[in-house]
Amino acid sequence: MRVIEGGVTAAAGFTAAGVNCGIKTGRNDFAMVASDIPASAAAMFTTNKVAAAPVVFDKEQLTKTSFISAIVANCGVANACTGERGLQDARDTAAKVSDTLKVKGEQVLVCSTGVIGSFLPMENILKGVELAAAQLSRDGHLDAAKAIMTTDTKSKEIAVEVETAKPAYRIGGMAKGSGMMKPNMATMLVFLTTDANLQPETLNLALRQAVEVSFHRISVDNDTSTNDTVILLANGECGGEEILPDTPEFQEFCDALKYVCIELAKMLVRDGEGTTKLIEIQIKHAASDADALTGARAVADSYLVKTAINGGDPNWGRIIAALGYAGIALTPEKVTLHINGAPILQENFQQPGTRAELRKLLATDTIVIVADLGIGDGQCTFWTSDLSNAYVDINAKYTT
Amino acid sequence: MRVIEGGVTAAAGFTAAGVNCGIKTGRNDFAMVASDIPASAAAMFTTNKVAAAPVVFDKEQLTKTSFISAIVANCGVANACTGERGLQDARDTAAKVSDTLKVKGEQVLVCSTGVIGSFLPMENILKGVELAAAQLSRDGHLDAAKAIMTTDTKSKEIAVEVETAKPAYRIGGMAKGSGMMKPNMATMLVFLTTDANLQPETLNLALRQAVEVSFHRISVDNDTSTNDTVILLANGECGGEEILPDTPEFQEFCDALKYVCIELAKMLVRDGEGTTKLIEIQIKHAASDADALTGARAVADSYLVKTAINGGDPNWGRIIAALGYAGIALTPEKVTLHINGAPILQENFQQPGTRAELRKLLATDTIVIVADLGIGDGQCTFWTSDLSNAYVDINAKYTT
Repeated sequence: MRVIEGGVTAAAGFTAAGVNCGIKTGRNDFAMVASDIPASAAAMFTTNKVAAAPVVFDKEQLTKTSFISAIVANCGVANACTGERGLQDARDTAAKVSDTLKVKGEQVLVCSTGVIGSFLPMENILKGVELAAAQLSRDGHLDAAKAIMTTDTKSKEIAVEVETAKPAYRIGGMAKGSGMMKPNMATMLVFLTTDANLQPETLNLALRQAVEVSFHRISVDNDTSTNDTVILLANGECGGEEILPDTPEFQEFCDALKYVCIELAKMLVRDGEGTTKLIEIQIKHAASDADALTGARAVADSYLVKTAINGGDPNWGRIIAALGYAGIALTPEKVTLHINGAPILQENFQQPGTRAELRKLLATDTIVIVADLGIGDGQCTFWTSDLSNAYVDINAKYTT
Repeated sequence: MRVIEGGVTAAAGFTAAGVNCGIKTGRNDFAMVASDIPASAAAMFTTNKVAAAPVVFDKEQLTKTSFISAIVANCGVANACTGERGLQDARDTAAKVSDTLKVKGEQVLVCSTGVIGSFLPMENILKGVELAAAQLSRDGHLDAAKAIMTTDTKSKEIAVEVETAKPAYRIGGMAKGSGMMKPNMATMLVFLTTDANLQPETLNLALRQAVEVSFHRISVDNDTSTNDTVILLANGECGGEEILPDTPEFQEFCDALKYVCIELAKMLVRDGEGTTKLIEIQIKHAASDADALTGARAVADSYLVKTAINGGDPNWGRIIAALGYAGIALTPEKVTLHINGAPILQENFQQPGTRAELRKLLATDTIVIVADLGIGDGQCTFWTSDLSNAYVDINAKYTT
């Protein structure tokens, strides 16, 4: 497997476009991703009970078909808390895509990100569909990735080629936003494409595995938005045979998909609001994988750990305290901690190194914390950001 | 019931002192609270599995007796993650108090707050016991309250007199710290005293009820420290008859105790690190009280709600999104929201008022958010703080 250029259009048969439809000024605000032929689709949506209209609509669509031809997404307005009118706006958007691209009405998914409680400016949206459809191309991946940015400071895309497969196939993707973003600029959106050949049920298995170890293992501010959506399309245009579950080929596909998802997930964290450091938390030898995940999340969500890392403070007491209140099996005397490879806490609370030495460990922009609980075989890797003044500024001072 | 002066020594038969024993410079760092006679005791401790030595020690003490004569507490060093030596230090401290005050060894409780992973400077601590014992007085309540402060900017004490009881009795208390504080300056410590006459089992019932609706209903940064401790002593020196469970007198006592605890809890939040606003969250008509508490906590713990309030932004989308991911029964269309008495969201997402009008509602230093879920009879009141740049500064830039 090798990393290649091309993002969401790296795989054969996919085109994309990003255009300005007038919601925002001076930047792309409307994206389209299309497959030459209807593609097997798998998707995961927010668990927030206040689900936005496009989420409700897409779920309905996927009860009608498991094959999708196009996805459109706008930024600026989330179309959340908009009731029946919001749902109708989502339907009208999809109908316009269907008409314009000459694809079946149920084979279109729509996504939105932006302010909660406002209605979509439908004139702009419908114009966006026309403009984007006219510009669809293999080169449109970056324009599309830029069109879904909100407070993101960088567009986020990646692609890989699995060259060991015969024939080789590609998996690419683009993403925006980590956790809840700028005031009401909710939403993580992730669009993934592949020209590998998988049936929807198989694709769904692969997506759930990959999301579990990537997008479900990151947090910036622990909010779950009303619009979170991950969509994976597989059109089989690499020309290869169908990949079936429980085969080495399926495992190879899953590994490549996990790589793509983990890299996108880390990009999301690193570009989180006010993030200055990516924090990777590895929990080892927990009583179970579930305990490891719970413990990692407690450390990741601790304001005190996040501010300490922001300040370059090797404050192991905050890490062990977070593990202590996580509600997992823990024998405090057995816990050992490493930061960026150096031991900072050994068994029975022995503390090697001086504070000055430890502070030097935190001068990097990626911080790897390894907590070994010394109990069982459970493990987990989780990513989070530090907590900075910039985060507070972005979220307190920006006025909706 | 009326509010009176006197804090932890307002009740008859209690004395207190706060002294400098040399851990800190230029301020009190060691507190003692004593009862003339062994008092019925009830206590609650941190649920953090990394429990500090004084917590482990106090729990042991309370298996030996339910009557306590004195409590001592130091700031600066938490005596947490200190193993057997830390436990011995706690024992030695209690033994010194026992010798000095001529009380039984098992009738002494010890508390610590400060840096995790350092040993107590026992020479200072033992000197502190002698100094404090020599200064015990009815006037010592404020000195004691000051001695347990860490990043607290104000000492916190309150007392009430229940004058409707015959004879009247008093309940007073002092507290420090809300949530985890300055780097490793863990700990909420609360010492409560009353001259009402209750047996330990009855006192324990009352304390659990009061803590449930006060200290368990606040969060600043959602961390649970290694040292959290709440102790209530009742010495019966008002001269009244024993208050028995399931009586109107017990209910009256519980109500007064809840008032004291809620007022102290609100002081803790208002003096939380970097707090500029006290946020009171009332959830009404949830499916159950448990759902109301879960929903209130989700709103209280949302970085986005806390930063919005800090910035004076009437961002109802963040509040309803937090309720949405709380995992409680919710029909989004039914939710109504009020801020400081004014409606900001009505049924079916109707939004009365303009942003400018709503912003004016947030110009106060106490913000009351009422979320009516319109489902059942569950309710809860919860308090939290806003999230400010000062919080980040305190926790990132302070070097341990």
